[in-house]
Amino acid sequence: MKGTTFAYPMYLFSGYFTMGHHSDITKRFFLLAKHQEIQALRHLSSNCKIVKAVTEMIHQLQRERGMSNVFLCSRGERFATQRAQQETASEMSEKTLRSLLNALYLSNSDNGLTMRLVTTITFALQGMDNLKDLRSKVALQQLTPTESTNAFCRLIAALIDVIFEAADVANDPAITRLLVALFNFIQGKEYAGQERACGAIGFSSSHFQQSLCDRITALTDSQNHLFETFSKFADDTELSMWQQQLESDHAQHLSRLRKMICELGETDTCTAELSEIWYDIATLRIDAMQDIEEHITDRLIEKATLRIAQAEEELRNNELLIASLNSSPPTGDTPISMIYDKTVKGLSMEGTHSEMGITSTSLSAHKSFYDLIRQQAQHIQDIANELNGAKQALNEQKAIDRVKLLLMQQGKLSESQAYKKLQSAAMEQNIRIAELAQRMLESLI
Amino acid sequence: MKGTTFAYPMYLFSGYFTMGHHSDITKRFFLLAKHQEIQALRHLSSNCKIVKAVTEMIHQLQRERGMSNVFLCSRGERFATQRAQQETASEMSEKTLRSLLNALYLSNSDNGLTMRLVTTITFALQGMDNLKDLRSKVALQQLTPTESTNAFCRLIAALIDVIFEAADVANDPAITRLLVALFNFIQGKEYAGQERACGAIGFSSSHFQQSLCDRITALTDSQNHLFETFSKFADDTELSMWQQQLESDHAQHLSRLRKMICELGETDTCTAELSEIWYDIATLRIDAMQDIEEHITDRLIEKATLRIAQAEEELRNNELLIASLNSSPPTGDTPISMIYDKTVKGLSMEGTHSEMGITSTSLSAHKSFYDLIRQQAQHIQDIANELNGAKQALNEQKAIDRVKLLLMQQGKLSESQAYKKLQSAAMEQNIRIAELAQRMLESLI
Repeated sequence: MKGTTFAYPMYLFSGYFTMGHHSDITKRFFLLAKHQEIQALRHLSSNCKIVKAVTEMIHQLQRERGMSNVFLCSRGERFATQRAQQETASEMSEKTLRSLLNALYLSNSDNGLTMRLVTTITFALQGMDNLKDLRSKVALQQLTPTESTNAFCRLIAALIDVIFEAADVANDPAITRLLVALFNFIQGKEYAGQERACGAIGFSSSHFQQSLCDRITALTDSQNHLFETFSKFADDTELSMWQQQLESDHAQHLSRLRKMICELGETDTCTAELSEIWYDIATLRIDAMQDIEEHITDRLIEKATLRIAQAEEELRNNELLIASLNSSPPTGDTPISMIYDKTVKGLSMEGTHSEMGITSTSLSAHKSFYDLIRQQAQHIQDIANELNGAKQALNEQKAIDRVKLLLMQQGKLSESQAYKKLQSAAMEQNIRIAELAQRMLESLI
Repeated sequence: MKGTTFAYPMYLFSGYFTMGHHSDITKRFFLLAKHQEIQALRHLSSNCKIVKAVTEMIHQLQRERGMSNVFLCSRGERFATQRAQQETASEMSEKTLRSLLNALYLSNSDNGLTMRLVTTITFALQGMDNLKDLRSKVALQQLTPTESTNAFCRLIAALIDVIFEAADVANDPAITRLLVALFNFIQGKEYAGQERACGAIGFSSSHFQQSLCDRITALTDSQNHLFETFSKFADDTELSMWQQQLESDHAQHLSRLRKMICELGETDTCTAELSEIWYDIATLRIDAMQDIEEHITDRLIEKATLRIAQAEEELRNNELLIASLNSSPPTGDTPISMIYDKTVKGLSMEGTHSEMGITSTSLSAHKSFYDLIRQQAQHIQDIANELNGAKQALNEQKAIDRVKLLLMQQGKLSESQAYKKLQSAAMEQNIRIAELAQRMLESLI
């Protein structure tokens, strides 16, 4: 970008103040707005590529977590080969992510990164650097299944945070909506993965403790909440893919198994063979979710590319307009200006006098220029309004997360217990969970 | 900045993967976070300088608006000289603003500008380009006082929008709070200026129509609301300056005159000599407000400079740590990593097993590195929380503005009537005006 922004031929500008209505600096800022939009879209496009690689890496880690769990639970008897193969797949996706991070962010200081996004990425990288250690401990069975699972969970949570931040800094309404949909979907899928692990523990030990049942219920509720938000922000294609999945055979199977878990008493036992059925069905479901994820991340990159092309086209048109502006002398009338535009805010003095408005109705370049400036000002307002809903959904999710963490720290609760507590308090007060979480945070400030 | 970010001596990095716990890319991202913070603070510092110039220009335009009004009301008999002098002062401040815009934003493509801020500036520049035309029309008395006042009001509103956007993109909590305070203060001062103009019209014609009284009351209420928000976000120095002003003689005088206006019936007349007393007192008040404005804008620039120096110092320390990291080989123990850190979120599997934690208590460089990464992640969360309140105050103001504009367009109301309508609806429903405005906007989406 450097150097291109201001390298306009001089005929576009005709001195510090033109004889017409518009000074050079106004024209330059007018063009700069579109340049900044293009630059922001390029950064957003980079972020979408990173989000795609992060999404892929999360999926591989989820698989590796599941297999490591089975491997450790069976004291190394099951999934030894699969786990080793999965290691390679995980490493591949990690390598892709690292190369992209290097190419998109480290080779150019104009990377559009915010301190927040960089910090979130650094935190995830710190975890990724220690995957080797984790894997060797799993291979040597130096960890309990819980310890291994927790280590994977933490890294996956850190990677999901990267997607959250990418959604939070995005500024194109359509792309932001899709990023918000993706974030909620991936978080939901992560809880689906954790539910698979919890179920596997219960079925393989042939009974479900009450605490395990509660955890599974909380994970199911969290998923429902997240997929609901996903549905609000996803486009039609993703929605219908999701609808198909909800109606699929494995979804029905899963419901039946979930119901069975809830109905089992603490002392009831179930056949350990269900363990593999549970694992297979839950895995089918999660793999189908990956199709939707991939679809979203592909479309994110497409959309970003398209938006860049559109904005570049708009820039060319703007440049042509500025050129024609300089070749068409302004009329001697009252200039077309925001200071005379009755539709512009700032008035407190409206009287009964008929006020001078924009009198020129000719299609002059000056009129077009003012119209475009006015439209651009309206456009950024519209964007802000459109972004509002998506950003609010993100903030609500963040508020729930933060309150959960507070409850976990203060009440020594698990994440699921904290969610459950929040959920029942919200039901009691007859408000949405997000609303309760936000109120709780406000009362802390 | 270009080129400096990644020009580290190679001894800081020791290959794609180090033998230790942290890969080069993690170290680079760790340092990048601080670089991005410094870059963002530099952009914020530029924005603060622009905000100072915009604030000064608004003040000059407010004076020019007042004098033009008196000049036009008196059919050119009064303030002819003062108005001409004021023109020069306004032009000086405009020249300063234009040079700063050119120097800070147009001579460098790495200007940190958002499309929104550029568009807002473009819109204000479009108005500024036509000030010459406005002034010549005022000098030739080709405009009514209302027409002239409205033209100035629109340009001032556009300039206040620039301050709003600068506050909205700011990301340092202390500086953002001060920008929010400034925005509310300047908007309040603008309403004080409009109140002065309304009062001048009433007193000079020796009576106050009901609509004029209502307008003055609405302007007073808006001011109270804005100065309340200002007080919430201002620092102690500004607060005590403001307190002093509230207790000053001219504040008492103004209250008495405001009361007199309210108590006058439509048919009552008052002596036209009060016109000058009103104007002088209102001007004293507004000039005293300028002292506070100046104080805030000076402190904004100071704070930004200080924060840049702090962040640069932190960057140097981070660089030293990375250097020491490479010279201290990691121990063979379990690495210090987020994946093993029990205080990190992402867990749903907490069991009763005692889990492996961070066992190393030695003060190794590796421990410090992890601690810093963890602190940084916590720090950005804290910043987000701190920024929340300030951004919320801005959003509320924007919501009120937008609803006012909608009411004006739909109900053909004046800005003051719209505010009054909003105010009484909020009182009826027993909620804050901002809350009502936000609910109304939500129901529109």
